[in-house]
Amino acid sequence: MSDGSTTTAYPVTPRNRVRRLHERGRYDHEAVHAVLDAGMLCHVAYVIDGQPYCTPTIHWREGDRLYWHGSSASRMLRHEKAGAPVCVTVSHLDGLVLARSGFNHSANYRSAMCFGTAFIVDDPEEKARALAAVTDRFWPGRAATLRPVDPQEAKATTVIGMTIEDAAVKARAKGVGDDDTQDAAFPVWAGVIPVETVIGALRPSPVMPPAVPVPDSVRLYGEGRRLDEALVETQALYEKR
Amino acid sequence: MSDGSTTTAYPVTPRNRVRRLHERGRYDHEAVHAVLDAGMLCHVAYVIDGQPYCTPTIHWREGDRLYWHGSSASRMLRHEKAGAPVCVTVSHLDGLVLARSGFNHSANYRSAMCFGTAFIVDDPEEKARALAAVTDRFWPGRAATLRPVDPQEAKATTVIGMTIEDAAVKARAKGVGDDDTQDAAFPVWAGVIPVETVIGALRPSPVMPPAVPVPDSVRLYGEGRRLDEALVETQALYEKR
Repeated sequence: MSDGSTTTAYPVTPRNRVRRLHERGRYDHEAVHAVLDAGMLCHVAYVIDGQPYCTPTIHWREGDRLYWHGSSASRMLRHEKAGAPVCVTVSHLDGLVLARSGFNHSANYRSAMCFGTAFIVDDPEEKARALAAVTDRFWPGRAATLRPVDPQEAKATTVIGMTIEDAAVKARAKGVGDDDTQDAAFPVWAGVIPVETVIGALRPSPVMPPAVPVPDSVRLYGEGRRLDEALVETQALYEKR
Repeated sequence: MSDGSTTTAYPVTPRNRVRRLHERGRYDHEAVHAVLDAGMLCHVAYVIDGQPYCTPTIHWREGDRLYWHGSSASRMLRHEKAGAPVCVTVSHLDGLVLARSGFNHSANYRSAMCFGTAFIVDDPEEKARALAAVTDRFWPGRAATLRPVDPQEAKATTVIGMTIEDAAVKARAKGVGDDDTQDAAFPVWAGVIPVETVIGALRPSPVMPPAVPVPDSVRLYGEGRRLDEALVETQALYEKR
């Protein structure tokens, strides 16, 4: 369902339409990209000979194109020059919701399911850009400071791309579902246990040359900071480059 | 690869064998269940008319059986009395690993991919047990304290089960991959940015009757505690019941 804003939206199709609890669904680019950009870890579903696989990997985004690499999905794609249908999902668990009935227990979460056709990025220019993006998107400006990628490394790395054809966000971010029913008087503890993914103290390599500074792009990942917020900020910096 | 311990292991088949970086793979029950139990959120891959879907949901485990509910996979299962092949994956992101070359950038993580045949739990006894487990597994003893599940609620809830036929854990938990190569002398910051999912301060329902205590099962989710550790502890308490 469009939120009525002027942002563009992904089309609603039979495969991405949110059926259950459809009031939690959104399709606009802004909502979808916000959930994708707030995460580093995605899960890719694909099919080989009728068997579904769900592989976790790291993703990054350029406009409406998603990228990931090193996934065993490459096994499938080697045999499918034309690409293969995939579903890439990014999810955030934000809280556990305890109600007075088992039925109303729930979770606060944000998830984006994205559908499209995966392909191996073998255009040399797109691949070089993607190999820089996989560091620059997370640590803006970092790629240029690294020991350059050598041709053997580039060859050993499979980058997979997918244009998002349709997508849906589903999210819940509120209190207990039975707070405004007669169940609310039932004498059992109810409430939300919030959870968040946070950054710990940097663990520098023990073998760095002396006096190598911590770059700003790494300082953005400050101890105690929420990972999703750091990832949204670095994506914005990356897009401004 | 077996770790040489005496625990039993899931069979290694073409679908669960870890191909890429196979030294990171394990198949023993202990390793697989540890990754599953440390998470609340799983991703379920399934296929409808050749299209893969990747749906996030909450899972719980009894022995080598996984359960989840409310998933749109039920859409598929309604048409497949015999069950349908699925892959259920639970993943934990533990750190971002920054090397001197783009190629050696990595992540610390734990993931378990589980394969099996999903079925709708319609045996009344198994379903009642599952509906209690979905709260008791996370908050041991809670189900008996709740307003009882009414028949309409039970009817409205689809519980899906799957016996794990084969499974694999893949994990990385170490420092920078190029620390012991000539790259280590390259003057760029390298190291690990650890991340962890932690519990925040409880947000009690604003409409509870006065003097409702916070039960021990909820106190286990103490502010600042790692969620994975709380989940492993509650699973152990649940199994001892």
